[in-house]
Amino acid sequence: MTTLTDTPDRRQAAPMAPTVVQIALGDRSYPILIGAGLLADPATWAPQANRKSVALVVTNTTVEPLYAATLAQALSPHFTRVRTLALPDGEVHKDLANLNLIFDELLGQEADRRTVLYALGGGVVGDMTGFAAACYMRGVPFVQVPTTLLAQVDSSVGGKTAVNHPLGKNMIGAFYQPRQVVCDLAVLDTLPDREMSAGLAEVIKYGASIDIDFLGWLERHIDALRARDRAALAHAVKRCCEIKARVVGADEKEAGLREILNFGHTFGHAIEAGMGYGAWLHGEGVGCGMVMAAALSARLGLVDEAFARRIESLVARAGLPVRGPASLAPGRYLELMRVDKKAQGGDIRFVLLTGEGHATVRTAPEAAVVDVIAALTAA
Amino acid sequence: MTTLTDTPDRRQAAPMAPTVVQIALGDRSYPILIGAGLLADPATWAPQANRKSVALVVTNTTVEPLYAATLAQALSPHFTRVRTLALPDGEVHKDLANLNLIFDELLGQEADRRTVLYALGGGVVGDMTGFAAACYMRGVPFVQVPTTLLAQVDSSVGGKTAVNHPLGKNMIGAFYQPRQVVCDLAVLDTLPDREMSAGLAEVIKYGASIDIDFLGWLERHIDALRARDRAALAHAVKRCCEIKARVVGADEKEAGLREILNFGHTFGHAIEAGMGYGAWLHGEGVGCGMVMAAALSARLGLVDEAFARRIESLVARAGLPVRGPASLAPGRYLELMRVDKKAQGGDIRFVLLTGEGHATVRTAPEAAVVDVIAALTAA
Repeated sequence: MTTLTDTPDRRQAAPMAPTVVQIALGDRSYPILIGAGLLADPATWAPQANRKSVALVVTNTTVEPLYAATLAQALSPHFTRVRTLALPDGEVHKDLANLNLIFDELLGQEADRRTVLYALGGGVVGDMTGFAAACYMRGVPFVQVPTTLLAQVDSSVGGKTAVNHPLGKNMIGAFYQPRQVVCDLAVLDTLPDREMSAGLAEVIKYGASIDIDFLGWLERHIDALRARDRAALAHAVKRCCEIKARVVGADEKEAGLREILNFGHTFGHAIEAGMGYGAWLHGEGVGCGMVMAAALSARLGLVDEAFARRIESLVARAGLPVRGPASLAPGRYLELMRVDKKAQGGDIRFVLLTGEGHATVRTAPEAAVVDVIAALTAA
Repeated sequence: MTTLTDTPDRRQAAPMAPTVVQIALGDRSYPILIGAGLLADPATWAPQANRKSVALVVTNTTVEPLYAATLAQALSPHFTRVRTLALPDGEVHKDLANLNLIFDELLGQEADRRTVLYALGGGVVGDMTGFAAACYMRGVPFVQVPTTLLAQVDSSVGGKTAVNHPLGKNMIGAFYQPRQVVCDLAVLDTLPDREMSAGLAEVIKYGASIDIDFLGWLERHIDALRARDRAALAHAVKRCCEIKARVVGADEKEAGLREILNFGHTFGHAIEAGMGYGAWLHGEGVGCGMVMAAALSARLGLVDEAFARRIESLVARAGLPVRGPASLAPGRYLELMRVDKKAQGGDIRFVLLTGEGHATVRTAPEAAVVDVIAALTAA
């Protein structure tokens, strides 16, 4: 891992030239553009231009009034027409019934195989739009336009798309790569603080489990990031995308290495599902889940207790919960984890730290898992 | 194309050694096994064996009482347990709601990524099971066990999976290859005559548009095929799979060449959709659609009228309709064709004959299309 230089903590008012991180996947390769003001610039959207076809912007009812008209305006020179569809906001709506609204719109517009879908929103919009693009006529192009920090650093990159099922999160989906990812840092100015913290959970994940130098940088810049310092955001988004690009390029379909990116997610998914989708944000579950996974790693003697406490401290400074909900018993976690897709033949697999900035995927004794959850559950 | 020797017309009572046709798609390659009695033989199913996981047989309520127990018995040595799910029978049930029944069963069984799905039935079961396998946890292995002639020669091979939408057929789906296709000729003994004829439509398709020698063989053996002569069936299924293997190997995702396999389908889909899914069988639509496509080809001067009449005669001898339904006006065909996925930017594309055993994909003047439909509509 290369050493990272620190970035000064000051908000930049002037537009920044976009940084490009390339995802290398052969004929499915694509660029991630990172910068401020990209969304409103028609030049951003030229690569997918097709004057014989339709563009469909899929967004949610929260983001639509903020950015949908701006994006549609910037896309309009490139397509016959641009349509916008706003889905209900929230993880609880990430299901087959709402997915079908996208198909209804596409078929109502007689959209053909050249239609381009634009996912304007957070992870839910990105996952649903990407899955709809994967399935519509067995595959049409799509572009990710993430408007949350979490989506910019994680969910919009790598081609994992899905919807939820009442019995499990992301159970129905596809590996389907976007043609382009556009991370406009300016849109983070309108992101609620709670969503900002949720995004920081995934940012911390990269540092804790993969890049110890980046973890050190985060400890120095966590306050600047929460304050939306644009230079700090630019560095964090770029570094996360670089790490994710490397991991996804080596393991597109999560045969092994890519599972490392699920650090904190086995516990986190159990909290999300156990509390009902939407009660805890995905990033909140991951934040608390990382604290539990770090503690389990220490409990099994894989890392020092001090490193686990260091993770907990940074998660807390990011404004995230570090204790599981009082209403969720340890045994319920186990039930929920067994049905999670990381389970293989009934054995629950955890991403565990094996050092500072290193992780592996393995099983753990159930008694240790239960003890750790119990110790980290709110009174 | 190699010249084919004729096969004697006699039903064989003794078991036949399976013939293997290989689909060459790199790491997605798979074998098609063709023979009698394969379904009940545990050896057939050894390649996907996983004693740590579950097998799910997806079938329909018509096929279940005939073959599900036999297949489950033959699979049982290879898996922890074998479950069977019977979906309602018919094209009208090929939708997202019924697809979700497969996910409900998989999640209810806590099925993991090593679960193998077996599609035991016709094209509807194969399309739905394949699409469910493509989506469940973003992809689990599946095996096609086609029980109709149509599925054996066409829909089970090539990896096209989908469900219908109220506004269009096969609009929601994936390209997803099975691990194995098992064509047991013995199961065709219980196939209703109407389904047998529907399957012959796809068989004739290969001859008319790709392999003129095979068309000649079919003209000599059409009665033997309708009578379920096993040697004739073995030859026809093998020849169709060989042709399809070659076309799919050259164009997995239907970028061009593979569209030739849609000969008769543009008209056929319009009839199916216009009459309501299930009123006409898919193969009946294709049969009548080939007569229309051949007539349109002759009308545009691409082939002789005599060849178009030769196609019509063979379609009629196969027990298929050669006239469109009286209740479907030519203008309605055009509306339905425009939303069909072969439409690109509003232009309707037809697979047209350019010679005996040769075809191409192109547009046609609407007036000629309307004339041909009108001339070939039942009084």
